[in-house]
This record gives sequence, C-alpha cells and structure tokens, in this order.
Amino acid sequence: MTYDKNYFLSLKKQFEQELFESVLPFWEKHSPDKKNGGYFNCLDRDGSVYDSTKHVWLQGRQVWMFSKLYREVQQRPEWLDLAASGMKFLRQHAITPQGRVHFTLTADGKALYTQRKIFSECFYTLALNEYAIASGQTDLQQEALQEFEKIWEFSQDASLVGRPSTPGDPGFKTLAIPMIMLNLMEELSGDNHSKFQTEVDTCLAQIKKHVIDQTVYENISPDGGIVNTSAGRLLNPGHAIEAGWFLQHWAIRLKDDQLSELATNIVRWSFDKGWDKKYGGIIHFLDGGGYNPVQLEWDMKLWWPHCEALYAHLLNYFTHRDDADLQRFKQTYDYTFKHFPDKEHGEWFGYLNRSGEVTHRFKGGPYKGCFHVPRTLWLCHKLISEKVDDL
Amino acid sequence: MTYDKNYFLSLKKQFEQELFESVLPFWEKHSPDKKNGGYFNCLDRDGSVYDSTKHVWLQGRQVWMFSKLYREVQQRPEWLDLAASGMKFLRQHAITPQGRVHFTLTADGKALYTQRKIFSECFYTLALNEYAIASGQTDLQQEALQEFEKIWEFSQDASLVGRPSTPGDPGFKTLAIPMIMLNLMEELSGDNHSKFQTEVDTCLAQIKKHVIDQTVYENISPDGGIVNTSAGRLLNPGHAIEAGWFLQHWAIRLKDDQLSELATNIVRWSFDKGWDKKYGGIIHFLDGGGYNPVQLEWDMKLWWPHCEALYAHLLNYFTHRDDADLQRFKQTYDYTFKHFPDKEHGEWFGYLNRSGEVTHRFKGGPYKGCFHVPRTLWLCHKLISEKVDDL
Repeated sequence: MTYDKNYFLSLKKQFEQELFESVLPFWEKHSPDKKNGGYFNCLDRDGSVYDSTKHVWLQGRQVWMFSKLYREVQQRPEWLDLAASGMKFLRQHAITPQGRVHFTLTADGKALYTQRKIFSECFYTLALNEYAIASGQTDLQQEALQEFEKIWEFSQDASLVGRPSTPGDPGFKTLAIPMIMLNLMEELSGDNHSKFQTEVDTCLAQIKKHVIDQTVYENISPDGGIVNTSAGRLLNPGHAIEAGWFLQHWAIRLKDDQLSELATNIVRWSFDKGWDKKYGGIIHFLDGGGYNPVQLEWDMKLWWPHCEALYAHLLNYFTHRDDADLQRFKQTYDYTFKHFPDKEHGEWFGYLNRSGEVTHRFKGGPYKGCFHVPRTLWLCHKLISEKVDDL
Repeated sequence: MTYDKNYFLSLKKQFEQELFESVLPFWEKHSPDKKNGGYFNCLDRDGSVYDSTKHVWLQGRQVWMFSKLYREVQQRPEWLDLAASGMKFLRQHAITPQGRVHFTLTADGKALYTQRKIFSECFYTLALNEYAIASGQTDLQQEALQEFEKIWEFSQDASLVGRPSTPGDPGFKTLAIPMIMLNLMEELSGDNHSKFQTEVDTCLAQIKKHVIDQTVYENISPDGGIVNTSAGRLLNPGHAIEAGWFLQHWAIRLKDDQLSELATNIVRWSFDKGWDKKYGGIIHFLDGGGYNPVQLEWDMKLWWPHCEALYAHLLNYFTHRDDADLQRFKQTYDYTFKHFPDKEHGEWFGYLNRSGEVTHRFKGGPYKGCFHVPRTLWLCHKLISEKVDDL
C-alpha cells in the first residue's frame, strides 16, 4: 500500500477544514435559539428552521460536542457560551417531575414526550459531565455522577423506565444499552480507568454475548441465544461498528489485547457484512437469517454508520497496523465524501436511498443533529495527530 | 374517452382472476397455523413463515376478509372454517386482563405487546361482527356491539388507552380515528343507516376539520388549525384517499350530495397531490408546507395507497360519471398492475422504492396481511357488477 505519512497529513487537514469551515459554522449560525436558549435541531438544507421542536438527545449531544471542542481543540468563548445555553435550557426544562429526562420539548421548553428508554438520560448526563469539566463547575460533575447511578439502575431493569413486560415477551437484551453505558463510563471516568470497574466488566460481558458466529446481533435472548423472529435476527451494522470502537477504547484503556482483537473483528465483520456490494455504502439493517428486514428503511444509506466506520477503521489501523483496515477506511472515505457533504450550504446530508441519491434534504431532524459528523471529524483528526509521527 | 361496458367487463374478470387465482390461494395455502389456530402473517415471497409473531390487526382483518367473502361472494365452507380458526384464536388470546386488545401475540397466543391506540380493538370488532353474521351467531354480534361502545369511549378520550398528556402536547386530533370509526359503524349498522346517527355525525364533523385549503392534514389541533411542525403538516395521501371512499359510502347511505362532493374532492385532491410526477405511483408521505417529510420512508410506494385509490376512483366514477376520475383510475391501475403483483408466487409485493423497484420481497409482514389487496379486488369487482348495466 502506498499510504504514507503525507496521506494522513492531508487527510488530517481535510477533516479539519470540513469541521471548521463546513460543519461547525452551520450549527453555530443556524441552531441557536436566541429567545429561549438551547438549539433548534430541525434545520432545512439551508439552515432554516422547519420545526421548532427540541429533541433532547440532540440538545444534550450538542452541549457535549461544543464543550468537548472547547476543552480539547480550542478555548473559544463562543463555544462555551453555546454549550452553556443548551445546558441551561436542559437543566430548566428536560427533567420530568419524576426525575427522568424528557425526549422532546417545545421551543420554550414545555414537555412533549417521554420515552420508556434510557437514552435521553444518557445524553443529558454526557452533556452535564463534559460541560462541567469545560466550565470548571465541579458541582455539575457531581450531579452527572448521581445521574449515572440512576441510569445504571435503569439499564439493568427496564421496568424502572416503564417498559411493560408481557408473558410472550422474549425479554430481549439490546446491544444499545451496554454500548451507551460503556461510552458514558469512558466519559465520566476520565483518566481513572478503574472508576467503574464492576459496571464496565458487566457491560463488556453483556456485549460479548451479542457476537455469535462472527455476527453481531442487535437483540438477544436473556440467556444469550438468537430469537428466531425478525427482531431477534436484526443486524444493524453501523451500530455494531460504533460498539466496536467503544470497545477498542476500553481495550486500550485496560491494555486488554484479547478485547482489542474482538473490538477489531466486530468492526471488520459488521462492515464486511453491511457493505452494499452492488451500490457501495453501509446498509442500515440486515436480517441475520438472510430474510428481508421488515424495517421500511432497511436498504437506505445513513450518514451516521459511515461516520462510525470512518473512525473505527482508522482506530483499528493505528492499533494493529493491518492494511486491510486502511483499505476499509479508504472505501468508507470515498463513499462518504462523495455522497454526504453538502458543498453548497455546509454540513452533511443524512439520508440516501440504496443507490446513493439524497432522499432527505434537511441537515437536522429528530435524530440528526450536531453530533455524529463533528464527532467523527474531531476523533479522526485527533487520532491522526497523535499517531502520525509513529509511522 | 373510449371506456365502454366491455372495458369494465374485462376489468371485472381480471379482478376476479387476481383474487381467486393469485391472492386468496396464497393466504389459504400459507397462512393457516394448523397447530395453534389463527394465521401466520409474516410470509416470505414464496409463502414460507419467516416470523411466527401474530399481529392482531392482521389476524382480525383476515377473519373479516374470509367471513365477508363467505357471506358476499360464495359460501365455501373452507372460508368459514378459516375465519373460525382466526376468530377462536383471537377470542382465546387477544384480550388483555383489562379488557383491551393486544397488538402482537406469539404463535401460541402469549401476549407480546399492547399499543396505546385503539386499532387492535377496531380490527378485532370488525372481525367479530362479520364472522358473527357469516356464521349466524347473534351472540357474537352482540359482543361486537359491546366492544364498539368501549371503542367509542376510547376514541373520544385517548387517555383511556394510556396515552400520556404533557404540557407541550398540541393535543393532535388524528384523521385515523374518525376514519376507522366510520368504517366500523358502516359494518356494524348493516342496513340500519341511522343506527349510530349521533356518532356518525360526530365523525363526519371531525373529518371535515382535517380538510384545509384543498389539503387533507393527518393531524390537526383541537380547534381545527394547522400546527406548524413536521407532524402538524404531515400529509398521508393514501390514508386521505381511503377516508374519501369511507365518506363516499356514508354519503350514499345518507343520500347526502354535499358529502358526496366532498368525498370525491378529498380523493381527487389527495391523489393529485400525492402522485409522483417523476416516477409515477402515490408517494407515502408529504409535508403540507413543502418541506421534506422526516419519515425515512416518505418517498416509497406502498401497495395499500394504490389499493385504496383503485377503489376510490372507481367509486367516484360510478357515483358522478366524470371521466377525470376514470382517468385517475386508469393511471393508478397501470402503475399498480405493472409493479405490485408477483406473477411467480402469487399475492402482491408491498413496498417499492421511489423509482418503482421492489425493496421488500415478503408478501406478509407486521402491517401487510390478507386485507388491502383482496378487499380492493372484491370491492372493485362488486362495484362493477352492480353498476356495469347502468352504463
């Protein structure tokens, strides 16, 4: 392979340009709600607001992103101000009377909907912790730890967030839970890698159960088997790839070679299975039994699996120096940068059909905000910066 | 136009063939669960079962369909037996301890999930009523009426089925509720057109509020206005077209010319707006404000809006004899019969991408069962049979 130091340096520069000249300006310019605080996250192609509903996952993620950039990239006061606006809005409006976290709010912060899931709590806590460190407010960091303890209980018993249980329910264990918990614990533990040792071990053991015959199942039975239904056979390659790099981070922290090997393989297996041989790009959903997934959007190409794959392959390469991972990175890079960035208005499109045409013109929606694109650009840039001199 | 009696006679014959030689045999052969009763409704292209989960909407609808065919088309004992098997399964397993109706069951009838919506109740009651008449069990018809009274209460107060209300909730009134109630009341009242007069008037008044500036909005505010969010601007052309023919049936029953005019226009406006000028076919979702719908599947072509449009246009034509409706019928017919029927294994595909390629190979899934295709073939056939001699 001919990839040398210069290749990575030019890549680093491109990621920097994309982040600073296209992606961040879009959110800085269009998302702030100057009246109520927080962010508009439903933004049309040109940044205009088409729905003022505020999705709490995306509010929390944007607080996290700007706090992180302030702390790790550059201490721009306007970034901390932007994070502060979202944090204040969330602390004022996102908490339910029962101490849970809402899923959606109106522009002025009235409660709209609360999910029977833990993810609003997770992204709220990610925001709280990172903003606390960035702004130097240790009381908020303490608050984040208290939130975490609550989420941990929820994560082990779904009935605590109101999920009903029924006699026929297979009691699925879902990959999303140990994944997000590992990510949250990485963030909350900082340099103290053994801070959540028991909880981390629990999550690692849980995730390993989802890997059966070189395939990562999204939902498994409580005893770790495959349930022979569409939901039980569901594969979500982008999600598994994201789980892969979460695991790789823990493998590096824990200096666990076996875990690192598994993390690498999870990314490789999921990517190779999810890559569309006909049109390119990562397919959103597959059925592990070879049936047709029932999700209507199964064959679409979404921006976030490609973001996850960019960083996961690069991390694998710099961890193991296997050219096959660099080849996978290049394949993902070519598809991603050809299809997703909007050169006219900035940021990236989020949704393509199977053959790669943009199907949704908006830049922000109920599930797409200021998160996956800047996170991957920042992570890739950071990784190359740290590793390029070792080449 | 050159459409004469012979055109309709050949159409009638084609619908009959499609129903008797392709669609019904598929369900008769592949859906019966001989062990537990009821029907497998997740059937792959060739009819093999890929998921044994039983979706109660589809179980109820299949009971209804075979009972209706037994009563209106031909008294084949095997059709009544098939309906009886589903009815028995539902009566044994579908009712919750609180007297509601589950959404999904395992193959052997264990409860899986209960929605906070009224539609399981509606399709259960449609089944109960039609099966009662077909089998001559008047006690079951009485039971259907009692179910209806409960559903009516639910339909006027969503909190009764556990829908939470929040301070920011716009309190959407959704088209689906008065629509399905009108359909249910048509079925339950038989020839006694004034049986539910107050309830019918209420639903007609509710539906009329959804029509604003020649556009049928799926969700409106309690005072009948447009809510300026993606959900508030949502258009579902196929659903509006279905509402149109439900209304036309009531207009005919009530001899209400003004209502008939509105019903016709609802179909015309929704079809003209929903028709994809680029690729043909009816688009699944639109945004009334011209924005991009947020639903990932917005630009797909689903089988059921095309089924609804086939019958709605034909009904409009035979009601008003305006060639423009026959033209719309022909346009729908050409697209539908070119794209949806599976000539190899029978029945129809359910899901196409925007350009008309089949994206989901299965014939039955969580929302597609033995219902829309046979219902429209039967309704169109029946209508032509009744009206063709008037031409």
